[in-house]
Amino acid sequence: MSVTAPAGFVAAGVPAGLKSTGAKDLALVVNEGPTHDSATVFTANRCKANPVLWSQEVVKDGVVRAVVLNSGGANCYTGPEGFQTTHAVAERVAERLGIGAGDVVVCSTGLIGLANPREHLLDGVDAAHAALSADGGAAAAEAIMTTDSVSKQVVVEGAGWRIGGMAKGAGMLAPQLATMLVVLTTDAVVPAADLDAALRAATRVSFDRLDSDGCMSTNDTVTLLASGASGITPTLDDFTQALTQACTDLAMQLLKDAEGADHEIAITVLGAASEDDAVEVGRSIARSNLFKAAVFGNDPNWGRVLASVGTTTAQFDPADLDVAMNGVWVCRASTPHADPATVDLTGREVEVTVDLKSGDARATVWTNDLTHAYVHENSAYSS
Amino acid sequence: MSVTAPAGFVAAGVPAGLKSTGAKDLALVVNEGPTHDSATVFTANRCKANPVLWSQEVVKDGVVRAVVLNSGGANCYTGPEGFQTTHAVAERVAERLGIGAGDVVVCSTGLIGLANPREHLLDGVDAAHAALSADGGAAAAEAIMTTDSVSKQVVVEGAGWRIGGMAKGAGMLAPQLATMLVVLTTDAVVPAADLDAALRAATRVSFDRLDSDGCMSTNDTVTLLASGASGITPTLDDFTQALTQACTDLAMQLLKDAEGADHEIAITVLGAASEDDAVEVGRSIARSNLFKAAVFGNDPNWGRVLASVGTTTAQFDPADLDVAMNGVWVCRASTPHADPATVDLTGREVEVTVDLKSGDARATVWTNDLTHAYVHENSAYSS
Repeated sequence: MSVTAPAGFVAAGVPAGLKSTGAKDLALVVNEGPTHDSATVFTANRCKANPVLWSQEVVKDGVVRAVVLNSGGANCYTGPEGFQTTHAVAERVAERLGIGAGDVVVCSTGLIGLANPREHLLDGVDAAHAALSADGGAAAAEAIMTTDSVSKQVVVEGAGWRIGGMAKGAGMLAPQLATMLVVLTTDAVVPAADLDAALRAATRVSFDRLDSDGCMSTNDTVTLLASGASGITPTLDDFTQALTQACTDLAMQLLKDAEGADHEIAITVLGAASEDDAVEVGRSIARSNLFKAAVFGNDPNWGRVLASVGTTTAQFDPADLDVAMNGVWVCRASTPHADPATVDLTGREVEVTVDLKSGDARATVWTNDLTHAYVHENSAYSS
Repeated sequence: MSVTAPAGFVAAGVPAGLKSTGAKDLALVVNEGPTHDSATVFTANRCKANPVLWSQEVVKDGVVRAVVLNSGGANCYTGPEGFQTTHAVAERVAERLGIGAGDVVVCSTGLIGLANPREHLLDGVDAAHAALSADGGAAAAEAIMTTDSVSKQVVVEGAGWRIGGMAKGAGMLAPQLATMLVVLTTDAVVPAADLDAALRAATRVSFDRLDSDGCMSTNDTVTLLASGASGITPTLDDFTQALTQACTDLAMQLLKDAEGADHEIAITVLGAASEDDAVEVGRSIARSNLFKAAVFGNDPNWGRVLASVGTTTAQFDPADLDVAMNGVWVCRASTPHADPATVDLTGREVEVTVDLKSGDARATVWTNDLTHAYVHENSAYSS
């Protein structure tokens, strides 16, 4: 399943000794071809982890043959030794597979500033290589989990081709990529340039619109590998649509597993002069701790919504804004309308709608509420 | 004390029945002259409350004779009726004092979307007018409290002149003004244009650098009134320096009383290419929920500091950043340095220092930690 659902891929997930629990913590995904086209997007954070610095070089030629991922340590700000560890891991993967290290993407996740034990990783690569199989997708998805409570996998069926995917992430979800690692695979025949266009289009409306806590990670990587093993070349539109479906499905799995959250909140901004305006407004609401704490308290506090809208540069008339919570228009023309007491926020899914009345563009941004459990998980343990 | 410490001012604070507890909730501050110069800054939020919309017009000519403030309701997004309430309150103050309503600043604080009972306010104005006295500063400071646990007052002594001040605010503290109302008074002789220059200089490095929870209010107002009663004209430099001292003192009182906070955090950014860069970096750290939760957990998590720095556009080399927590340099040249276990964060005051090594500019931004009590106070009750 997941990354091994499309033809031409093998994968494995093994314990390499990075997690003190002995759980699986190293995953390997290999594209057996016949094509090795790829596209990758990275975190927009300027402070990037060693595996990101390495992988940025790897992906430049559009060819990726393998992705090796570890949980249990982000290998970020660990100095020259840390970069050498990333390099050594890529070399070991290349050696075992008989390919060049320059075709191996490396991903790591975990605590910043903590050196990963190199020997554990190299032994883990050997074990993962020995375990590679066309059934290995589920084990790989399990090996990249950190504080995730469940593994995240997806399969989307095309006409004679498939897209598979796995993701890890449970907090630190923010725009221009959440703290997450995602590997997507397909057996469709798609050249690297088209993969890149499709991936950017798909992430723009899925992962990039997830804003769990406004914190951008140093390690985010989304890699898409195409094996061409189906022999079928879909239209770019069809492929982009299927890829967007896969990315959105994984994004919703990430949202539902966000650390300590009690609610999944979809903020839809309507009537915007542009899609950028809609996203800016949605994001500003998604980042309001006051609004997020109110949702945790099942309080339909539309005042906190409007106070966030007012911090943006979007086009709107402050005296003519409408706000609905779970379908109840609690504010019309910037004036109290329906009784907030009629809004029921006790379910996990919350919908906030803001009508800017300034155009036809719209966008949805997803976030979570701010809870005691969020504070606990992010204060009681380092991560 | 406070706003009545300088000569030429009377004030009062009375219960007007807006707070269900029967506590004082209406304050009146009157400048008896001989001069009536003033300067005022308002929230940068585009969604502004009715009293802000009113007061923006009042202050345009630089003349303000009285400020009337109420807690117990923000009068924000309450429709045309709400604006008429603000207008009626200003008219009643003007009538009692024999001045024009166009010289009366109105400030309100409390829940958005809730209409203030007009008759209560008007009766409150009458009661406050009857109670006006040169000893009324403390009562006025008490009447503007909402979730504040203590009233905030300050007096700064000049050479034969004084500055007095009061503030309310305990959360929703954000740049371009916290959710706060501040009245500053002086008996120095200072023309309106100089008051404006001094006030902008003072707020820029005090209230504007306070970022308790990143949420910008709809009602923030800082008004400075000069009576000229001392007959002394200080230099603009001396006056600005004293005013900055008064504003910083009040800002620190706001910081220490932020809702549910366990720590006051001073984030100093050194070695910046510009002061704007230093402020941008400091603000990005101050807005990281992950960093703030770590401080609550007494965890010197410098990885979360660097992850925030990386989201900014400031000039720096990601491979050459230094970070200290309470004076311990836990990261040098973007590599682990001193053992984080030697950092003691158990005290209330936390100092974070980031050296960008890109210039000589610096700035300090203040924030609080993210605690269970913050979530509780902002989820269990509407505000």
